Amino acid sequence: MTDSETRIETARLRDFIATALRKLGMPDDDAATVAALMADADLQGSDGHGVIRLPHYARRIRAGGLNLRPAIRVLEERSGMALIDGDNGMGHLVMTRAAGLAIEKARVAGVAWVGARMSNHAGPASLYARMPLASDMIGMYFAVGNANHLPPWGGLDMLLSTNPIAVAVPAARHTSIVLDMATTVAAYGKVKAKAQRGESMPEGWMIDRQGNPLTDPRRAEEGFLLPIGGYKGYGLALIVGLLAGTLNQAAMGKDVIDFNHDDTSPTNTGQAIVAIDIAAFGDANAFKVRVDTLIDDLRGSRRMPNVERIWLPGEQSNAKRVQFARDGIPLSAALLQNLGRLADDLGIERLA
Amino acid sequence: MTDSETRIETARLRDFIATALRKLGMPDDDAATVAALMADADLQGSDGHGVIRLPHYARRIRAGGLNLRPAIRVLEERSGMALIDGDNGMGHLVMTRAAGLAIEKARVAGVAWVGARMSNHAGPASLYARMPLASDMIGMYFAVGNANHLPPWGGLDMLLSTNPIAVAVPAARHTSIVLDMATTVAAYGKVKAKAQRGESMPEGWMIDRQGNPLTDPRRAEEGFLLPIGGYKGYGLALIVGLLAGTLNQAAMGKDVIDFNHDDTSPTNTGQAIVAIDIAAFGDANAFKVRVDTLIDDLRGSRRMPNVERIWLPGEQSNAKRVQFARDGIPLSAALLQNLGRLADDLGIERLA
Repeated sequence: MTDSETRIETARLRDFIATALRKLGMPDDDAATVAALMADADLQGSDGHGVIRLPHYARRIRAGGLNLRPAIRVLEERSGMALIDGDNGMGHLVMTRAAGLAIEKARVAGVAWVGARMSNHAGPASLYARMPLASDMIGMYFAVGNANHLPPWGGLDMLLSTNPIAVAVPAARHTSIVLDMATTVAAYGKVKAKAQRGESMPEGWMIDRQGNPLTDPRRAEEGFLLPIGGYKGYGLALIVGLLAGTLNQAAMGKDVIDFNHDDTSPTNTGQAIVAIDIAAFGDANAFKVRVDTLIDDLRGSRRMPNVERIWLPGEQSNAKRVQFARDGIPLSAALLQNLGRLADDLGIERLA
Repeated sequence: MTDSETRIETARLRDFIATALRKLGMPDDDAATVAALMADADLQGSDGHGVIRLPHYARRIRAGGLNLRPAIRVLEERSGMALIDGDNGMGHLVMTRAAGLAIEKARVAGVAWVGARMSNHAGPASLYARMPLASDMIGMYFAVGNANHLPPWGGLDMLLSTNPIAVAVPAARHTSIVLDMATTVAAYGKVKAKAQRGESMPEGWMIDRQGNPLTDPRRAEEGFLLPIGGYKGYGLALIVGLLAGTLNQAAMGKDVIDFNHDDTSPTNTGQAIVAIDIAAFGDANAFKVRVDTLIDDLRGSRRMPNVERIWLPGEQSNAKRVQFARDGIPLSAALLQNLGRLADDLGIERLA
C-alpha cells in the first residue's frame, strides 16, 4: 500500500457499487449480485477488474449499451451442456446464472459445460471458476476479452483478445488452487491499472508495431500485448476464443467490439463455464487430501537462490482476501477521485 | 530433410511397428491399433512421439512393465463422464477406448469428459484430440507426462511434467485447427529428438540448477525445462496434472515414475479426453463456416517485417501429413540404426 491509498471496507465498497448501479436503473437484486462480485474482485486483489470498471459500466449503461432488464434464457440444453443467451445483460448476471446451471447439471451428469452468448464483461475469470468449489466441484472458465489486443503470431492486425482461462480446484486443509491467467504475458486490465496509477510497464508485456518494447501504458493503443510462450500463447488465445466465442455464436476475431471505444453496440461477449463433480470420479474428500499432499510437496521443494517461498496459483489472491477483509481494500487516490466524480454525477454519497 | 535421412512409406512403417509389437507378444488387433497411431505420429511430423519410442516400449514390455493383455474397464460412469482403468496397457489402447467412449457419450449429453488411470504413454496429444473431429465434435486432451522435468516456479525439485494440452476444432473448407502444446517452452520429446540427431537446443528451452541456459540435449538430466510464460506455465502444468492425474487417481507430483529409468513399475499414467458435440450448441456446419472465416481473417492479417505467412495451429502438421503421405516419412540414419538393432534382436525384417 502506498501513501496515496485509502482502505475501504468490503461491505462499504459493495454498498457504494450497488447504490450506483441502482441509481443507473438496475433492479435491486441484480445490482446487489453485480456489486458483490465487483467488490469480491477488489477483495482478492484483482484491481483491474473490480470497482475500477464502474465508471465505464456506468457510461455504457447510460449510452444504452447494456440491457438492464435482460431475459437471460437457455437456448440449447442436454444433460451435459447448455447454451444460454444473456440478452445483453451485465456479464456478472449471465455468468452467475451459467455457473449455477453448470453446477446443477454436473450433479447429475458428472461434468457439465455451459456456454453463453450475448453476455458482457464479467470481471475476473477466477470469480466464476471458484463458484463450483462450494459444491466440491472443480470449476473452469473461458472467456473472449472485450477488445482485441493481440495479432496472430507474426501479424499486425489485432484479431485476438487476451482470452483468459481460470481453473479452481478444492483442497482439504489448504486453500483452493485457483489459476486465473490471461493468455498474454499481462492482462489488459493490468495495463489499465498501471496507466491509472501512473506507473510504467515492465519490458515483455507489450511491443509496438515495429516489435520494440512498449513500456508506457498510456501508449498502449499503439502496440500489442505479447502472448505467453510466443506462438503457443497465440494458439491458446485462439482456442479459448473458439470455445468461448465461436462455439456459442458469440463475437470472436474481427467481430469483437472494442468496448473501450464503443458504448452502444452489443458486445455479444462469449464465455463458458465447466463444472466437474469430483464425487463422480471417486471419493471427493480423498481427492482433496491428495491435493493437500501435492500442495505440501510443491511448497516444500528446495528453492533456487534468492527465492523466499514457492507459491501455489491463487495463494496470493487468497492472502489478499484475508488481509483486505481485515484491514480494508486499498484504493488509489486517482481511482477514488474518478469514483467521486461518478458519485457526484449520480447524486449519491462519495465512497471516501 | 537432410542427406542422412531415408524416406519410408507410412504403410511400411506401420507394418514394421505392428510386426515388432506382435513379436513382443502383443495381440494382433492391439498391435495394429498401436502401430497405426505411432506411424500417424511420424506422418504428422511428431517425430519425438512416433517410432522413435519403439525401442523404449520394447524394453519396457520385455521387462514386464506393460500389460500386454489389459482388461480396460469403466470404473465410474455418468451421462457426461466416465473414469476408465487402463490396467497398465499401452496408452494408445487406453486412450483410443477413452476417446470412443467420450464421443459416444457426447452424442447424447452434448459434452463428455472421460478420464483414465493406470494408462501409459500414448504418443502425441493431438492424435486423441483429433479423434472427435470425424463426428463433428471438438476434442480436448490433457495428460500427465511420464517423467518430471519441471520444478514448481522458483524451486529445484522436479515435481511436474510437461503435461500437454491438445485441442482440435473442425473447419469446413480449411483443415482443422489443432493445438498440441506442452506447458513447457519445449516438449521433452523434442529434447530427445535433438539428442538423437546430435543437435543442440536453442536457449530458452532448458536451464541448469543455477539458472543458466542449458543447450546440450545430452546434459538434459542436469537441468529443467522452462514453463511457458514463467509462473503461468507452471500453473498450467499443475492444473493439467490435477485434471488428468489427481482427479483420476493417477500419478501426479512425486508419484510420477520416470519411465526413462524405470522399466518395471506401473506408471499409472493419467489422461483425459473431452468431446464437445457442436450440434448441441447449434448448426454444426454453420460453426465450421465461422471457423473458416476466422482462419481466413487470421491468415490474411498484415504481417510484421520478414514474416512470410501467418500459421494456424496444426497447419504445419497437416502440411507434413500431405507431404509425407506422398513422399514418405523421413527417418534419420541414427534412428534407422536403432530400429535395425531392435529388428535384429526380434528377428524381424529391418525397416531399411
